[in-house]
Amino acid sequence: MGTVATREEVLAAAGRARVAAAELAPLTRGEKDAALHAMAEALVERTEEIVLANARDIAAGREAGLSEGLIDRLTLTSQRIAAIAAALVEVAALPDPVGEVVRGYRLANGLDLRQVRVPLGVVGMIYEARPNVTVDAAGLCLKSGNAALLRGSASAYESNQALVEVLREAASKAGMPQDAIQLVPGVDRDSVHHLMSARGLVDVIIPRGGAGLIQTVVENSTVPVIETGVGNCHVYVDASAELDMAERIVVNSKTHRPSVCNAAESLLVHADLVGSGGLDRLLRALDAAGVTLHADPAALARAEAVGVPAVAATEEDWAAEYLSMDMAVAVVDDLDAGIEHIRRWTSRHTEAIVASDERAIRHFVSRMDSAAIMVNASTRFTDGGELGLGAEIGISTQKMHARGPMGLAEMTSTSWICVGDGQIRS
Amino acid sequence: MGTVATREEVLAAAGRARVAAAELAPLTRGEKDAALHAMAEALVERTEEIVLANARDIAAGREAGLSEGLIDRLTLTSQRIAAIAAALVEVAALPDPVGEVVRGYRLANGLDLRQVRVPLGVVGMIYEARPNVTVDAAGLCLKSGNAALLRGSASAYESNQALVEVLREAASKAGMPQDAIQLVPGVDRDSVHHLMSARGLVDVIIPRGGAGLIQTVVENSTVPVIETGVGNCHVYVDASAELDMAERIVVNSKTHRPSVCNAAESLLVHADLVGSGGLDRLLRALDAAGVTLHADPAALARAEAVGVPAVAATEEDWAAEYLSMDMAVAVVDDLDAGIEHIRRWTSRHTEAIVASDERAIRHFVSRMDSAAIMVNASTRFTDGGELGLGAEIGISTQKMHARGPMGLAEMTSTSWICVGDGQIRS
Repeated sequence: MGTVATREEVLAAAGRARVAAAELAPLTRGEKDAALHAMAEALVERTEEIVLANARDIAAGREAGLSEGLIDRLTLTSQRIAAIAAALVEVAALPDPVGEVVRGYRLANGLDLRQVRVPLGVVGMIYEARPNVTVDAAGLCLKSGNAALLRGSASAYESNQALVEVLREAASKAGMPQDAIQLVPGVDRDSVHHLMSARGLVDVIIPRGGAGLIQTVVENSTVPVIETGVGNCHVYVDASAELDMAERIVVNSKTHRPSVCNAAESLLVHADLVGSGGLDRLLRALDAAGVTLHADPAALARAEAVGVPAVAATEEDWAAEYLSMDMAVAVVDDLDAGIEHIRRWTSRHTEAIVASDERAIRHFVSRMDSAAIMVNASTRFTDGGELGLGAEIGISTQKMHARGPMGLAEMTSTSWICVGDGQIRS
Repeated sequence: MGTVATREEVLAAAGRARVAAAELAPLTRGEKDAALHAMAEALVERTEEIVLANARDIAAGREAGLSEGLIDRLTLTSQRIAAIAAALVEVAALPDPVGEVVRGYRLANGLDLRQVRVPLGVVGMIYEARPNVTVDAAGLCLKSGNAALLRGSASAYESNQALVEVLREAASKAGMPQDAIQLVPGVDRDSVHHLMSARGLVDVIIPRGGAGLIQTVVENSTVPVIETGVGNCHVYVDASAELDMAERIVVNSKTHRPSVCNAAESLLVHADLVGSGGLDRLLRALDAAGVTLHADPAALARAEAVGVPAVAATEEDWAAEYLSMDMAVAVVDDLDAGIEHIRRWTSRHTEAIVASDERAIRHFVSRMDSAAIMVNASTRFTDGGELGLGAEIGISTQKMHARGPMGLAEMTSTSWICVGDGQIRS
């Protein structure tokens, strides 16, 4: 099966990726887009063999007792493969980030400076479950001139192998370097550790998956990591909020797609809204939408008063990323108390304020420490597609390099190019 | 002496920095600049006590047998303190990076987006020798809204303590949070390790110093690191180079200040220049400037032929960052061979090409993988001041976050601020 790999095998793959990266960097947009189109066509043409490989993963998954939810996420159909291929074509339609001049000017001594986007080099992706990530990541890496080292989950190994074989063959025929796209050899835990130790060969590792996976990578990698995706997002409803808007935003942030990182997990309500009936209205709306409320004493009292079921919140609720139809609710004395609660408990992904008082909004925005801050809008907008980045390889929750949704530009570094006619320092 | 610190003490300092960072983020440029001016004045006013503390370090250094060079770098005089204070005033004169809108646009649904610079938060600096770095780093961190956790070398402990006490008192009187500037408790190795383990409290660690220090930090830190400063810089002289210009640039790159990271260490000469006399001229010029040549067989033969002393280069020479009046010299068959040599041996800091053939220049530039590429200019220009960044906290040789000279903008992250009037996702 080739499912166990030595450190040497993983480093050799990284070394081949490094060679490919050098060849990818100077390619033109036209050359890369042609390859992306060829890859999309090959996926559709070779649907049958991909589905067959996928069937082996599914059979193994059922034997291992995977839940129906996970089996569904693992499953590739011809329809899904067509959608995955279409996403590659969409990536081809995006501008090439490589070569973009970030800034440039002429110095007093006549040197012409340009700070220009260049590929990162070799990008390692470590991810779980869905095989579509394999194709998405390969496409985004190729477009941004990076060599991709892909490490999907063991449960999708056969599917990922088939997909990568199809992509490699098509890319290579279209003139891309042989090893622009590779699966990391091995599916055991050791192979992940070998990848994380390949500093100098791999330029960055992007983990995508649950909190446990991300924590493991962050703590063990000597290769620089971009931390992604844990979202304990808050909605703060100010005393000055329009209640119609607040209800709409709170319900949408929580229930539109509760299983994703930009769904809201905690609701903070200004104390003035307890007496005014505003809190009651929000509790009723969440209950009507099917949300289980985890309430602090003040919110619990109002829930009981208006006949909405709720359970008492503990500290764990303030920290929880439920990813389900649960929401923690707290009443805060004022704006600063709301800010303090968020700064204490947030994972720094996305926070929203609903308010009409401009001074309150400015105060809130300047004191948040999160990747995205929504003013009178749903937390669900923190997404590369929604924010106009065109595509997304993940949502960074760290401050270094990239923060928030990462599109093609975030898959690049920069170089300073300084052109003179003999300038020296004196 | 308080020179040994427990993990709890270091983490407590980081926790206080975190609180200070929250207070620093919303401060205005005016408030921060006033504090920088007050800090500069206080350094000058309290010169005497700083010099006294410094004398204790110098006495201890002499006792420990530090070289005169190191003693000189450690020494603070009233003149040097005035220069350090003047640098703070210069930082005050630079624009505030916080709040700069990096990009912004309105979405189809009416959401107004702005990607805005925000402070990184808590910046840990680990550095060697010169106590002026203490003040520089404190000033750059403050201006960019970051709390500074400073860890200088044990040999400068007394000086750093005195400097930080002066800076803290002045900053605090000017309205800055108490712990915006702190020395990391302890001077033993453990305290560095405690700092590097403070993930979640410290946002980034910037090591400045020798290759050993940087390697230790990169390999052991769970806090994200910005790798700085090792420079094995190359000058490639093409067959199309103007020889006057080549001579000037090679000599300047090597000899203008050989002890710094942007000094050139290797010279690569196109084979056509062997027969034409071009190589001979470069060898003579370097020799006349006092450079010891470490030459490959082809260059060695020419050196002997023209009576210039040279030693035979080994592989170690291609990898060396001499930081001295030594230079490795190799003859390369053609442009691609030069590129291959550089890609194999470079530390990805700065490479220069001297050429008049535009096609050769484009080919070279697009195949380099370094922070800065100089076309017909000295490698010595890779410097924040020279490139117009106004100030510099270090030169990043990694690709993540910042690359090349790091000014104030590189001390920031960004947040997405999305302003709507009730937008939800459907």
